[in-house]
Amino acid sequence: MTLPLNPAFALTEAPPVMEARRWVTGRSFPESKPLINVSQAAPVDPPPLALRHVIAEAALNDPAAHLYGPVLGLPDLRAEIAAQWSGAYGGTVRADQVAITQGCNQAFCAIMSTLAGAGDEVILPTPWYFNHKMWLDMSGVRTVPLATGGDLIPDAAKAAQLITDRTRAIVLVSPNNPGGVEYPAETLTAFRHLARSRDIALIVDETYRDFDSRTGAPHDLFADPDWDDTLVQLYSFSKAFRLTGHRVGAIVASTARLAEVEKFLDTVAICPSQLGQMAALWGMRNLTQWVAGERAKILARRAAMVSGFAQALPDWRLMGCGAYFAYVEHPFGMGSAELAKALVDQAHVLMLPGTMFTPEGSAEGQRQLRIAFANVDAGGIATLFDRLAGFRA
Amino acid sequence: MTLPLNPAFALTEAPPVMEARRWVTGRSFPESKPLINVSQAAPVDPPPLALRHVIAEAALNDPAAHLYGPVLGLPDLRAEIAAQWSGAYGGTVRADQVAITQGCNQAFCAIMSTLAGAGDEVILPTPWYFNHKMWLDMSGVRTVPLATGGDLIPDAAKAAQLITDRTRAIVLVSPNNPGGVEYPAETLTAFRHLARSRDIALIVDETYRDFDSRTGAPHDLFADPDWDDTLVQLYSFSKAFRLTGHRVGAIVASTARLAEVEKFLDTVAICPSQLGQMAALWGMRNLTQWVAGERAKILARRAAMVSGFAQALPDWRLMGCGAYFAYVEHPFGMGSAELAKALVDQAHVLMLPGTMFTPEGSAEGQRQLRIAFANVDAGGIATLFDRLAGFRA
Repeated sequence: MTLPLNPAFALTEAPPVMEARRWVTGRSFPESKPLINVSQAAPVDPPPLALRHVIAEAALNDPAAHLYGPVLGLPDLRAEIAAQWSGAYGGTVRADQVAITQGCNQAFCAIMSTLAGAGDEVILPTPWYFNHKMWLDMSGVRTVPLATGGDLIPDAAKAAQLITDRTRAIVLVSPNNPGGVEYPAETLTAFRHLARSRDIALIVDETYRDFDSRTGAPHDLFADPDWDDTLVQLYSFSKAFRLTGHRVGAIVASTARLAEVEKFLDTVAICPSQLGQMAALWGMRNLTQWVAGERAKILARRAAMVSGFAQALPDWRLMGCGAYFAYVEHPFGMGSAELAKALVDQAHVLMLPGTMFTPEGSAEGQRQLRIAFANVDAGGIATLFDRLAGFRA
Repeated sequence: MTLPLNPAFALTEAPPVMEARRWVTGRSFPESKPLINVSQAAPVDPPPLALRHVIAEAALNDPAAHLYGPVLGLPDLRAEIAAQWSGAYGGTVRADQVAITQGCNQAFCAIMSTLAGAGDEVILPTPWYFNHKMWLDMSGVRTVPLATGGDLIPDAAKAAQLITDRTRAIVLVSPNNPGGVEYPAETLTAFRHLARSRDIALIVDETYRDFDSRTGAPHDLFADPDWDDTLVQLYSFSKAFRLTGHRVGAIVASTARLAEVEKFLDTVAICPSQLGQMAALWGMRNLTQWVAGERAKILARRAAMVSGFAQALPDWRLMGCGAYFAYVEHPFGMGSAELAKALVDQAHVLMLPGTMFTPEGSAEGQRQLRIAFANVDAGGIATLFDRLAGFRA
């Protein structure tokens, strides 16, 4: 093209999920050995019928479903989150500390824009969630990778070494995408302490919170009455209620910070989808039991993944397993992107290579793969292990 | 707050519509003289019943309504736009030259991000659409104002004087928000010629296209087989089908440019609302007659505004009138923001001051007001003129 291109875009990779989709587009797989797609973290079924009825009813009879709403979201939904969070995390979250966004990706972009501009730095543990990295790249913000060890848990003391006068935030995702690990409460506490002592933001993305294997609150950050001087929490309704196509997420942060977020959202979104918000609100009030059942299903699949690696693939190393993901080290003498393509060709399995979650040229990314197992039932998981066990590089 | 604030945000004004809303929040107006709100450009009624049925039906029975879809939008909707545009504008627009966004504001942010980064410049005619200015401010892009004359029509020759080696785009909005004027086809042609000759983008926001008073194509830019080397068109489904609460807009640009846009949208949106897109597609295929009726209604209100100013307010000057807007010069010896507040207090009329659409310190903005009249019926417009005629500063 002859038109100007923002140089930051030239340096930004194309969306990895779409690149992976191209590996299978236009290909056919035999009925006897269909493709097992473990590349994307998304529900494949619609929300429960009762919730679909609620959406349909609102579309038909509630004019507000079709009109602009407040930039920061429906007041009732903000209040419901505040109330449920206050209970669940044992702290105080007020409705004016909650903003609703068009999905959790947008929540990240919005809060990050208020914190960091071109030339600033943000610390992301590796492997990272690629959309976080893409946004930072497009904004001209330098991503500072924080290597994690074999357990994929980031270390606050190591992070402290990376902070400079341009550092604006540290971003943690727990349960982790792509790593699948659930960060211990102490890890989050240590990072909050670090962030507070250096006047930078701690952003905790809890998109997969509802599928955490632990009971009770996963951390006590909100129990601190001054949590909002440091902490920003991100959340998604896409997974819990299968509302991916409606795009509803949330930011929990200080009221003053949300006044800045409001500038971004007014300009990029105007408001989130009204129907999506109505669905999220109804879900929060009525689907607790249903979500508990979904969680049980995911946890059973997680257990199948753990035992599958132990029994069928002793040469592979399962580094993390939780939420929707298993993150593994493969035993083959080839790079992970090449391997991922070979797995499509021979095993008819689509997963994402570690190179999509790690800095360019990283040796670790070459040895790693992400398996998004949440949509694969017990039979499918057994087949997956048969295929992987039979695979020869 | 103690956390870092991106300095570009500190320099970005809060959303004007919300500031104006605060002028009336918590106030009550007597039944005998209720508030006439002409501050926002948005439908106040839901879409027609048939379209609501389509949305409800999809919510109930189409699983795809709730799941992720392609980043650049539903293929059928992209194809429908391409086909209808090719016909309406007398040119060739292909489906892969169309992307769907979560509203037209997002369309602007997405395309602008691909063109301009911090330190670059973009030319906006004044008065401008404030969300455009806000996005440029938040991105650290310098807005270069292009003054228009008393007719609010920008002049390409004047714009040529403002182009530097940092200029990345010129943005035109026609029919104009806030000015209400419909740019002559020759104006658009002249700007295309200028943009092409200087290798910068010409962005034409046609959000209010469906309410243009002229018949036939408003310009012939798409008739040029090479249109996509320079032109980017933006569109909104919010006004035509009253889908504001669903957030659906579009970008028409080169396929190569849309590959860059895809990076932004994957990160900020993942995909537009599926229900909103399904509604837009059904509307395009079934609501042509209905939209024509809406247009006739708006044009009648426009005529009432024009004659109202001529007859009832000879001291005011109607600078532009079209789409949803009248843009006027007031006769009072006070600034427009002060006047707008006085109009709320005394006349119970809420409109936006010109200062919200013009560079800080601009003398012209102090004399101007925007009246978003689209939701006010004939009786309301008569009352509006009575109130304004009776107002004493």
